[in-house]
Amino acid sequence: MTIEHVSSNKSFGGWHKQYSHASTTTHCDMRFAIYLPPQCSSGAKVPVLYWLSGLTCTDENFMQKAGAQRIAAELGIAIVAPDTSPRGENVANDDGYDLGQGAGFYLNATQAPWSAHFHMYDYVVNELPALIEAHFPVTQQRAISGHSMGGHGALTIALKNPQLFASASAFSPICHPTQCPWGRKAFTAYLGEDQSTWLQYDTVHLISQNRESVPMLVDQGLDDNFLKEQLMPSALAEAVTQTDYPLVLRQHEGYDHSYYFIASFIEDHLRFHAKQLAE
Amino acid sequence: MTIEHVSSNKSFGGWHKQYSHASTTTHCDMRFAIYLPPQCSSGAKVPVLYWLSGLTCTDENFMQKAGAQRIAAELGIAIVAPDTSPRGENVANDDGYDLGQGAGFYLNATQAPWSAHFHMYDYVVNELPALIEAHFPVTQQRAISGHSMGGHGALTIALKNPQLFASASAFSPICHPTQCPWGRKAFTAYLGEDQSTWLQYDTVHLISQNRESVPMLVDQGLDDNFLKEQLMPSALAEAVTQTDYPLVLRQHEGYDHSYYFIASFIEDHLRFHAKQLAE
Repeated sequence: MTIEHVSSNKSFGGWHKQYSHASTTTHCDMRFAIYLPPQCSSGAKVPVLYWLSGLTCTDENFMQKAGAQRIAAELGIAIVAPDTSPRGENVANDDGYDLGQGAGFYLNATQAPWSAHFHMYDYVVNELPALIEAHFPVTQQRAISGHSMGGHGALTIALKNPQLFASASAFSPICHPTQCPWGRKAFTAYLGEDQSTWLQYDTVHLISQNRESVPMLVDQGLDDNFLKEQLMPSALAEAVTQTDYPLVLRQHEGYDHSYYFIASFIEDHLRFHAKQLAE
Repeated sequence: MTIEHVSSNKSFGGWHKQYSHASTTTHCDMRFAIYLPPQCSSGAKVPVLYWLSGLTCTDENFMQKAGAQRIAAELGIAIVAPDTSPRGENVANDDGYDLGQGAGFYLNATQAPWSAHFHMYDYVVNELPALIEAHFPVTQQRAISGHSMGGHGALTIALKNPQLFASASAFSPICHPTQCPWGRKAFTAYLGEDQSTWLQYDTVHLISQNRESVPMLVDQGLDDNFLKEQLMPSALAEAVTQTDYPLVLRQHEGYDHSYYFIASFIEDHLRFHAKQLAE
């Protein structure tokens, strides 16, 4: 479990750093970014928020555009942003932006050629937290959040691992991937034609199973181009209402799918996670 | 003076928008971004901070990475970010990242082939403010700021136009371009071999002329790769001391040349400008 330092930038008194490592889960080199708040420099151990990005993103989008470091520095929370898929010349890919490299969908692929590397679910649930907790001054308190495909990842991973995460949140998540074009394309390729195997990665389905609860916050912009066809927050709202799941869904007039939306509300998410992590 | 709408994103209750227009100064289409704080939606006119970006940037870098909208929304300040040069197939260019398109240096070129389009000084001082004040709900109160090449632009433009700007600030500015490699290469190409024509675009020289004062704030990271060879803040500090110019130069341990540095201190700059604009 060695990691290689890629870059460092001082940010709000703490440090944004990038590392790469040979992943035993995805069988390729993976890069991730971590923000260590100033509290770490004075010897404190801090909890970790895992951030999962959306289609086409790397570890960089959130760290550069969300403006989260200011609040993480105030609250004393580390943020870890993995890449959105395995990558490299030897890793399978597709011409579409919504399949293959940059589009791992936070699942374990079972179908060739994807099954050789595309195990982002295991990577985020197991390998990455173990690596982070071995190498950085962090506690085992964890929260998880993400955007779009990464919002789907954050919610499904928290729903399936309530013991691992104190809280989960999402911006513009793909709520019901078994029923939308992005999800159906990806799940068919990664998981095959048997749709019963898809359900384990569908937030609306998992919430209807009414598992052990994880407090959740979801923000959705109402001028999001992908709202009805891909994201389907109304299906999420219905599942939450039927099961009384502790998920707050906020809908925001005028906001779109971009990081301008995320930056506008990321402070609320960090304060929400800080409160859950403190309980 | 017509402008064409390119994009809109809601941000912190206000709007980030991009426009393009046929510039009569640079004789090509120019794109700019404007952040209109929420106060504009309720009919108020607000002051404007002009932001000049550095080498290789467009109107997008600052708007996506600095996290300034949060504070601009609170203070009721619009932010305008022009491109860093004329662009297009018919515009002269160079293979280097530090000359030609993306590297306009906020001057009026006098040498062929650059003199046909490279008039970023006149564009920022005259055409852009007139355009902004004709099309948007803003007052004629202006401030100016920028990064690196854009820090050089902000300081030199304010020094030469104290009646136009209430205040100026910069991150990591090229303080003494007549004496550093970036500046000497650009000035030789744009202005020619006669170095007496260069002095009008050199902050250290202009401050030594002790003109009408504009309050200024400059932040510089001490782990900036370009610190000694290109930026030369020590020459600025010396000029300010000798002339008693009202410029505060802050130097920050550990920070580099990136937007992680800018984001960490942009709030101070906006509050500095808001205070000067209110006086």
